[in-house]
Amino acid sequence: MRSNAGAMTQHIRFDIKARDGAARTGVLSTPRGDIRTPAFMPVGTQASVKAMRPESVRQTGADIILANTYHLMLRPGAERVAQLGGLHQFMNWHHPILTDSGGFQVMSLAKLRKISETGVDFQSHIDGSTHMLTPERAIEIQCLLGADIQMVLDECTPFPVTHHDAAHSMELSMRWAARCKDAFGDRPGQALFGIVQGSIYEDLRVRSLQALMDIGFDGYAIGGLAVGEGREMTARVLDWLAPLLPDHRPHYLMGVGKPTDIVAAVAHGMDMFDCVLPTRSGRHGQAFYRGGELNLRNARHGEDPNPIDPACLCPTCQQHSRAYLHHLFRAGEYLGPMLLTWHNLHYYQDFMSDLRGAIEQGKFAGFAESVIRCHGANGQTAAP
Amino acid sequence: MRSNAGAMTQHIRFDIKARDGAARTGVLSTPRGDIRTPAFMPVGTQASVKAMRPESVRQTGADIILANTYHLMLRPGAERVAQLGGLHQFMNWHHPILTDSGGFQVMSLAKLRKISETGVDFQSHIDGSTHMLTPERAIEIQCLLGADIQMVLDECTPFPVTHHDAAHSMELSMRWAARCKDAFGDRPGQALFGIVQGSIYEDLRVRSLQALMDIGFDGYAIGGLAVGEGREMTARVLDWLAPLLPDHRPHYLMGVGKPTDIVAAVAHGMDMFDCVLPTRSGRHGQAFYRGGELNLRNARHGEDPNPIDPACLCPTCQQHSRAYLHHLFRAGEYLGPMLLTWHNLHYYQDFMSDLRGAIEQGKFAGFAESVIRCHGANGQTAAP
Repeated sequence: MRSNAGAMTQHIRFDIKARDGAARTGVLSTPRGDIRTPAFMPVGTQASVKAMRPESVRQTGADIILANTYHLMLRPGAERVAQLGGLHQFMNWHHPILTDSGGFQVMSLAKLRKISETGVDFQSHIDGSTHMLTPERAIEIQCLLGADIQMVLDECTPFPVTHHDAAHSMELSMRWAARCKDAFGDRPGQALFGIVQGSIYEDLRVRSLQALMDIGFDGYAIGGLAVGEGREMTARVLDWLAPLLPDHRPHYLMGVGKPTDIVAAVAHGMDMFDCVLPTRSGRHGQAFYRGGELNLRNARHGEDPNPIDPACLCPTCQQHSRAYLHHLFRAGEYLGPMLLTWHNLHYYQDFMSDLRGAIEQGKFAGFAESVIRCHGANGQTAAP
Repeated sequence: MRSNAGAMTQHIRFDIKARDGAARTGVLSTPRGDIRTPAFMPVGTQASVKAMRPESVRQTGADIILANTYHLMLRPGAERVAQLGGLHQFMNWHHPILTDSGGFQVMSLAKLRKISETGVDFQSHIDGSTHMLTPERAIEIQCLLGADIQMVLDECTPFPVTHHDAAHSMELSMRWAARCKDAFGDRPGQALFGIVQGSIYEDLRVRSLQALMDIGFDGYAIGGLAVGEGREMTARVLDWLAPLLPDHRPHYLMGVGKPTDIVAAVAHGMDMFDCVLPTRSGRHGQAFYRGGELNLRNARHGEDPNPIDPACLCPTCQQHSRAYLHHLFRAGEYLGPMLLTWHNLHYYQDFMSDLRGAIEQGKFAGFAESVIRCHGANGQTAAP
């Protein structure tokens, strides 16, 4: 079950396999396993993909999951996880893990934040205890967790923000990125990704990317999108930013998204995605499937003996009807979120697999059109 | 996955395999599968054993589960379940199911009850809608659900109760039992159990049992215990009541219980048990294991890399540490209840299997002693 410790001397590598326009498929190889890209990473915030056993997550086809530095540093604590053998051992997931740096959650969850050149002082949202997150500590924590892919600490610029404030924030993030790279050093078998900031300002984004490329990272993420700027603005930023990303490195669009958002980003050459949508929606009765989306709490599913999707091979669709799922959600049973999370994650992985297949066959444009037809151009569900 | 419909013409039968004192093992054979006795039936109140997929319940070793008539008649409704193919099909559990009659929950959950000779009028605790449960309707509902073992409608006498009131209540229950038997008629492949009432009064219990035997049932349950009368009183009632139960029929002690309670009842010749304890405790961080009980929320488990029980073969113990379970419960993750419910149900089934083995080897007394040593004579946990 454990990865081969000897193999940890192996370096992470990224090989592009096929291209269709700017879209591409590839393999990000790590000592803990290969990640087929474009990849969707289920979110395991607190060392658990909610309502899923790790082996079930694997059965959906996931190559990698994401865990949250902020949550884990507060509970159970990075040192404790390290003492228990690292995050893979702790949660019994022996495949790749990407950890965010904690920056985003410090901004959105923590209380009494104080940002300085050094880092950010904050109070835990759990118990009010005070903590300091510096670029060096963010890397130390991610190393204690044993993350295969680590992220630099950045200041997540709010939206909307003035050009002046966005510039200052981005420049601080770039100085932090350099300190993260120094702290990370050379860690065979593990990767460090930089994060492009600069809000919606083209000049700032370009300067941010150039700063990161000067430092040199194993992958490049786009942060500060999907924070309320709207779908059109996201698309516009990707239009001019995505082509500038180093082609031979993986491109990670953080916090995205709906199937239609993923398709749009893959069309711009993005390779990696993470989002709470399939898991969070699953806990609230919202199903994703080939036909679009549906809410299982709706009365019309109450007498429907059919599965969510007869063509879906997940255990939920193989074993349970919409009527039963409807009942479970209405009755407030744990099993509803369990079954629907599994289905949604399975759907997302199937979706990514189909997407990769379409690129390999040079049929990405047609695939993208069919996704927009089923899921709606604005991510709205077509009438099911 | 479905049971053989042709086999439904087969009658339920009960064969005693081994005896050790009053304790005995047996097999209750139904067209949907054999139930090894003494048997523990996990509770699936709303057509779901909470936080468990049906195939996981089966993997714990359960031969039969219990479902609640009261809950299912209100939501999703017995007619709807029937229309969807019956309860087995609805919840995808194709092994035996026992349904209670709804009497107990009407008394404990429903609002504005009015009991008459005809039956009980009540308001749903969910939406205030009014319903009538008569002996005939209780059987009709259980037939619509398709339960393999059905229970007569009884009035659950509260505790404490005067002899006078207990007598009146018991006599009403006996008249209802006769009406249930008439309504049930002859249903090959399905069984109807009577329920002995009479609170803690020996003369009433004896009269109740005699009335049921005069009607004739496939099995005999003891109701109205474990309702606050205390462990010693339960034992005293079993002392004089259990020996009078028809030897060649299964004996079901309703709503019991802790491992120590089960051992004490098996010593009196009881064969079947149901209880929410392993599932409910599992959702609250309380683990049952060979060493007794432990609360995983306790700080001392936070750094413990060992499983709950290294000898336990459940997936939770095979794959996860006490430290991880501690974290999951502290963090409020769904996975905590999921993993611990699985473990507790696995433990209970292992426990029943060991108990049956002890009876078959004539070593029940020693087994009972070891259970009391580990779990405490009063069901209290020994210091772990």
